[in-house]
Amino acid sequence: MTEISGANRTATELVERHRETLERALEAIGERSYWSAFPESPSPRAYGEDAAAHGEQAHAEHLGKPFPLDQPGTDGWVGAEHSPYGLELDIQYPHPDLAALLPAMTAAIPAWRDAGPWTRAAVCVEILTRLNARSFEIAHAVMHTTGQPFVMAFQAGGPHAQDRGLEAVAYALAEQTRYPEAASWEKPQGRRPPLRMDKSFIAVPRGIGLVIGCTTFPTWNSYPGLFASLATGNAVLVKPHPGAVLPLAITVAVAREVLAEAGFEPDLVALAAETDGERMAADLAVRPEIRIVDFTGSSAFGDWLEANARQALVYTEKAGVNGIVIDSTDSYRGLLANLAFTLALYSGQMCTTSQNLYVPRDGIRTDEGQKSLQEFGDDLRDALDALLSEDAKAVELLGALVNESVIQRLETARTMGDPVVDTRPVRHPNYPDAIVRTPLVLRVSIEDEKIYGEECFGPVAFLVPTESTTQSIEIFRRLGLERGALTAGVYSTSAEVLDAMRNAALETGIALSENLTGGVYVNQSSAFSDFHGTGANPAANATYTDGAFVAGRFRIVQTRRHAPADVDADDQSAEPAEASG
Amino acid sequence: MTEISGANRTATELVERHRETLERALEAIGERSYWSAFPESPSPRAYGEDAAAHGEQAHAEHLGKPFPLDQPGTDGWVGAEHSPYGLELDIQYPHPDLAALLPAMTAAIPAWRDAGPWTRAAVCVEILTRLNARSFEIAHAVMHTTGQPFVMAFQAGGPHAQDRGLEAVAYALAEQTRYPEAASWEKPQGRRPPLRMDKSFIAVPRGIGLVIGCTTFPTWNSYPGLFASLATGNAVLVKPHPGAVLPLAITVAVAREVLAEAGFEPDLVALAAETDGERMAADLAVRPEIRIVDFTGSSAFGDWLEANARQALVYTEKAGVNGIVIDSTDSYRGLLANLAFTLALYSGQMCTTSQNLYVPRDGIRTDEGQKSLQEFGDDLRDALDALLSEDAKAVELLGALVNESVIQRLETARTMGDPVVDTRPVRHPNYPDAIVRTPLVLRVSIEDEKIYGEECFGPVAFLVPTESTTQSIEIFRRLGLERGALTAGVYSTSAEVLDAMRNAALETGIALSENLTGGVYVNQSSAFSDFHGTGANPAANATYTDGAFVAGRFRIVQTRRHAPADVDADDQSAEPAEASG
Repeated sequence: MTEISGANRTATELVERHRETLERALEAIGERSYWSAFPESPSPRAYGEDAAAHGEQAHAEHLGKPFPLDQPGTDGWVGAEHSPYGLELDIQYPHPDLAALLPAMTAAIPAWRDAGPWTRAAVCVEILTRLNARSFEIAHAVMHTTGQPFVMAFQAGGPHAQDRGLEAVAYALAEQTRYPEAASWEKPQGRRPPLRMDKSFIAVPRGIGLVIGCTTFPTWNSYPGLFASLATGNAVLVKPHPGAVLPLAITVAVAREVLAEAGFEPDLVALAAETDGERMAADLAVRPEIRIVDFTGSSAFGDWLEANARQALVYTEKAGVNGIVIDSTDSYRGLLANLAFTLALYSGQMCTTSQNLYVPRDGIRTDEGQKSLQEFGDDLRDALDALLSEDAKAVELLGALVNESVIQRLETARTMGDPVVDTRPVRHPNYPDAIVRTPLVLRVSIEDEKIYGEECFGPVAFLVPTESTTQSIEIFRRLGLERGALTAGVYSTSAEVLDAMRNAALETGIALSENLTGGVYVNQSSAFSDFHGTGANPAANATYTDGAFVAGRFRIVQTRRHAPADVDADDQSAEPAEASG
Repeated sequence: MTEISGANRTATELVERHRETLERALEAIGERSYWSAFPESPSPRAYGEDAAAHGEQAHAEHLGKPFPLDQPGTDGWVGAEHSPYGLELDIQYPHPDLAALLPAMTAAIPAWRDAGPWTRAAVCVEILTRLNARSFEIAHAVMHTTGQPFVMAFQAGGPHAQDRGLEAVAYALAEQTRYPEAASWEKPQGRRPPLRMDKSFIAVPRGIGLVIGCTTFPTWNSYPGLFASLATGNAVLVKPHPGAVLPLAITVAVAREVLAEAGFEPDLVALAAETDGERMAADLAVRPEIRIVDFTGSSAFGDWLEANARQALVYTEKAGVNGIVIDSTDSYRGLLANLAFTLALYSGQMCTTSQNLYVPRDGIRTDEGQKSLQEFGDDLRDALDALLSEDAKAVELLGALVNESVIQRLETARTMGDPVVDTRPVRHPNYPDAIVRTPLVLRVSIEDEKIYGEECFGPVAFLVPTESTTQSIEIFRRLGLERGALTAGVYSTSAEVLDAMRNAALETGIALSENLTGGVYVNQSSAFSDFHGTGANPAANATYTDGAFVAGRFRIVQTRRHAPADVDADDQSAEPAEASG
């Protein structure tokens, strides 16, 4: 009893502690202008003087050890992460005995359901807040599993992922609280006394949500689904990519710690680490206990999940072909610099990086005069060279290639077309074993759709010469419908071209960035403002984060009864008061 | 130009005309207490002195003729409706050439999309308002296709269906307008000028929604999906059951008339009438143009749709096994009267009618003393006899059996158990050919799960004697998980029993009515207050109407650009401002 009272008090305190943040987050999703709850700068001002050193230390302490996670149903220890920077990781994680783990998770759900939306949201914010405090530790974990450069690993793996998680919590809270907990229903009956009913409406979760992490953004792409499912009352099983476990293991550990402190079963969140090649995700995804799946990864497996995980709601982010239509610009230098940065960032290993640059073969009008296709290619090369001239600075933008398949893909690509900008190796001053490469831009022919019409994940872009901007838009439109995309860009000074491109973007359901020439890039999205993915094209069936992303994760179950004064057997009508089918 | 201006003016006028109704409806879905926009009483006070006569006349004029519908792509005329009351209908409907009709519908979508959520909502309310004015005509159409008694056909087919349609419009409007149309995003950059972006967010529909009507509630079960899809910018193809076309043909005609007057392509709504056995729904449901399916009907076809219509969002209402746990009551007369009415209404041909009555074999405690199982059965028989003693009154409650399969099912059921209440034929004073039957209540054994564990649609209920209320709840719970249900009831004076039943209802995801002894019945649901179905059990994957019912029918596609003063190529940071996966 004492423990339970303490737990209840903790939950109540958490609601009070985080009410303001939640209310601000609710406001933010209604405005979708700029807001962030977690500072993105890895500076001592934001995180304290010792945070960087403590984070590095905490990371170092994980190395070479079993990761401490006390979840039930562990039948062994697995781990084969490989740092793209060459650091020895050698961390072992519990491998789940699903027959023991899943029932424990299911058993934890009713009390979490009964806690209600505000308590769940507050517990989620507490988890995010503690994750935020460990952002440096998480940054090292993300860097050494994904190959992201440190600052990006900090931002994308830490505060930006936490903001996306909070955004999902806000939508979940808004969605559940749009229904009243109770209602008095009073229906006039002419001269007779009204019919009166008391009704209760309870948000009921679906069951266990499975979150399947990816290798490049283990936290950023997992937090929306994780927190959307958790905040709507579900338990969440996190199945990381075998190459990027540590950031999600830390996440799961923090979630379990907070849940337990708040008086809930920590088994509401658990890790499902697997050996490489085990394909545990496919086994898990079709189990009856799994009622939600959030997936980021290949189209092949995403499509398989959508077709086979029929007992679950399946949210997927898959491959696509992102393109930019380049027609004209009044800021040629801005265009080049922006584009160079986009292609260089994390060596193009983002699902939002532009792949196809559609440019009329006669060139483009610019504020520096007409530029031929050749000149544009040369200028893009120069812009990339300028951006990446110093190895020490270049690695902080490029990061390292995440794994062998990206390295291979880059090698193969070099044979596919005419290099407008060639790739070159970059030496990392601190990690000599890291494989770092600058982006490759290949000029292809418009007939080579088998090349540029597929996603070529990594530091490879295609310059596609077209007959005209009209044709550029038409190719963009067709590939958008067939292959999908997460991002699209257009550069034009013509209102007609912008209109045509906006229409193509609406028709294909692809988010469009227009004339980016400053410090915002087409491959970046900002939580609480930009939607990531639309769910309206083959690249993703869901969005981070909107109402549709959370609405199906719970259901309203109602109960009703006569209001106390209304129990009267004589008060019946021979006519049906309300009919239903 | 003149025509377009006129149309725009009409759309604007519609928004002003219906703004108050829409605002009230938005308020109603937030409160879920009593509200109705359309008077349910078929009285001259509500609908005018001539409405009844005009409606009957309008119905009579449909008979024996082709139904006037000018939609494109008609390759023939079909119709084989049969009135359960024996009236000769002989109405022909256009049979679609899908290769011509679907492209016309698709072409109509962009202007409808661009009109925005408020205009779409106002057009929908105008459609509903005109449908409401034709409620008497629709009542006759519903009566003579479904077998519903007239007042029920008026209420369920008219105002209650219209209220459900308006409820869907309200959720659609709320869901689309929760996102701003535009946002100014301004991100601080320390001492440097902030990054500033202008962003637009546009609700984009999925495509064509297919609404597959059922034979018993052609409008009530179709309007939520129809109006949810239409209000979110989709076109809607209405495929009625071959036995109940007229009510939906009138609906489609009214929708097309209003759309054209408001300046939109009428082809946004079209009818797909088929010959019996054509199975057009299955062909349609897997076509790429069909991106949403709303279905009411058998579990077999609903499950098939969920498995095969993979290109679409599929919302299904299927079969289930509704049960009532009877433990004890402080109003035995109220219980009996309420239960008798529930079983009698429309001869149990509602997907919400209770089928299984779980009663402890030792009987129940009541305000009239302990009642044995035998006494309870006898008293229920007496209550039904009292309710249905006069044929002329009985037919106004029972209606007619809708078709041969219900008649056959009733015949077969009589051999399955021990009749506690036998069925008897009732002679309809006005329609001597109508097949009218009182409900059959069969006592079965708890072992007969192959009988009571399946839906037996029609005027058949099973009295299931259990060891105890605990066992009653356990059977209810297990069948709920395995078979699903749309409604559940409990009668008990014990707080423990009510708690246990509420928990079972939450676990199985079934809406629960407690101790109904007055003028509200377990098989009735009230728009804007009661949810119909939960989507949380096998009987339905969706709810009329909640956020999840509308959220996926459209997607937000955003565009963004630098705010005018912000186009500055020098304003770049070497650090990623925002990262995304």
